[in-house]
Amino acid sequence: MKSNLFITFEGPEGAGKTTILTRITERLRENNIDVLATREPGGIEIAEKIREVILNPENTAMDERTEALLYAAARSQHFFEKVEPAMKAGKMILCDRFIDSSLAYQGYARGIGIDEVLSINEFAIGKRMPDLTILFDLNPAVGLARIHAHNERELNRLDVESLSFHEKVREGYHEVVKRYPNRIKVVNADQSVENVVEDVWRLICESLDEK
Amino acid sequence: MKSNLFITFEGPEGAGKTTILTRITERLRENNIDVLATREPGGIEIAEKIREVILNPENTAMDERTEALLYAAARSQHFFEKVEPAMKAGKMILCDRFIDSSLAYQGYARGIGIDEVLSINEFAIGKRMPDLTILFDLNPAVGLARIHAHNERELNRLDVESLSFHEKVREGYHEVVKRYPNRIKVVNADQSVENVVEDVWRLICESLDEK
Repeated sequence: MKSNLFITFEGPEGAGKTTILTRITERLRENNIDVLATREPGGIEIAEKIREVILNPENTAMDERTEALLYAAARSQHFFEKVEPAMKAGKMILCDRFIDSSLAYQGYARGIGIDEVLSINEFAIGKRMPDLTILFDLNPAVGLARIHAHNERELNRLDVESLSFHEKVREGYHEVVKRYPNRIKVVNADQSVENVVEDVWRLICESLDEK
Repeated sequence: MKSNLFITFEGPEGAGKTTILTRITERLRENNIDVLATREPGGIEIAEKIREVILNPENTAMDERTEALLYAAARSQHFFEKVEPAMKAGKMILCDRFIDSSLAYQGYARGIGIDEVLSINEFAIGKRMPDLTILFDLNPAVGLARIHAHNERELNRLDVESLSFHEKVREGYHEVVKRYPNRIKVVNADQSVENVVEDVWRLICESLDEK
């Protein structure tokens, strides 16, 4: 069975992407499928250094276009240094967040524009889009509540303010789905982990059958 | 007289850009024109940090698209943090290298494509192109000889190999001139500094008259 699909997981924080990605990776390996599980910057030195520039709290005055270009730069390096060689070696790739995060967060929610953010990301990855993207869809209030339950503290004023931003992110993801209805499959993330794993597993199996 | 033009200087190393920029800045100030003389990253902290990532000799495996995106990111930050506020304050801007360097070096000479490098740079600066660009045109062999005369050493094998690259850069600049014949004015840099200063001064005065 040919299995070198490039699969990305998308959605808000608190949707369970990381947990599900680990579970799916284990299940694929039990089925003798060679998997690279990764996320940007993924231990790639140049990409890690770019990430440091983005996340340095001293850099408060960073222009939002500068930030979008830096994410695209880190994506390019991670893709060509780690993802593409693994694909060529016949591995299946599971990547936690990829181009659609930039489209939803920076293109839509930050207001730069989906088309504009798409153009610099196409430059970054040379139009090599994922074969399958799974969007973990969740009411942002549920996602935030999960994060804060985990952190054992109550929602504060800042969290509540940011709720409207996270709602824009969700809208942004749904705009992106409209553009790529064949590539992106939406999964209801407001279920038990077991149920979400089953939904994701079924989608991956369908993609493998199509290939 | 309205004088907040955005002027960029382009051309190879050894063409005298920096010397001429200093002389022109002095002359403009003698004429009571308020000038910002700058170059990327221009002391802008985020842009300096991006530059460190690009120039770190340990980062030998940097993908050329990553590099182009990082230059565009540094350009965006320098432009919005330093250049645009000075323009709004009514200053004339003289900038040593700008978008056309990326088009000639990375778009043409490195082979990424002028259109592709243009698109990420238009994203970076929001299509705010210079009012006037002066290209210091010079046979690359003359430029390299000047640099090495200055460094008091002879041309080595590596320099000679790189000559073909510098010839491609010159071709690249001339491709860019074809696209922007009104914006970019070519100056013969193979003359005395005094003569080049006079040619550049005349071009700037013509642009001020048009404005």
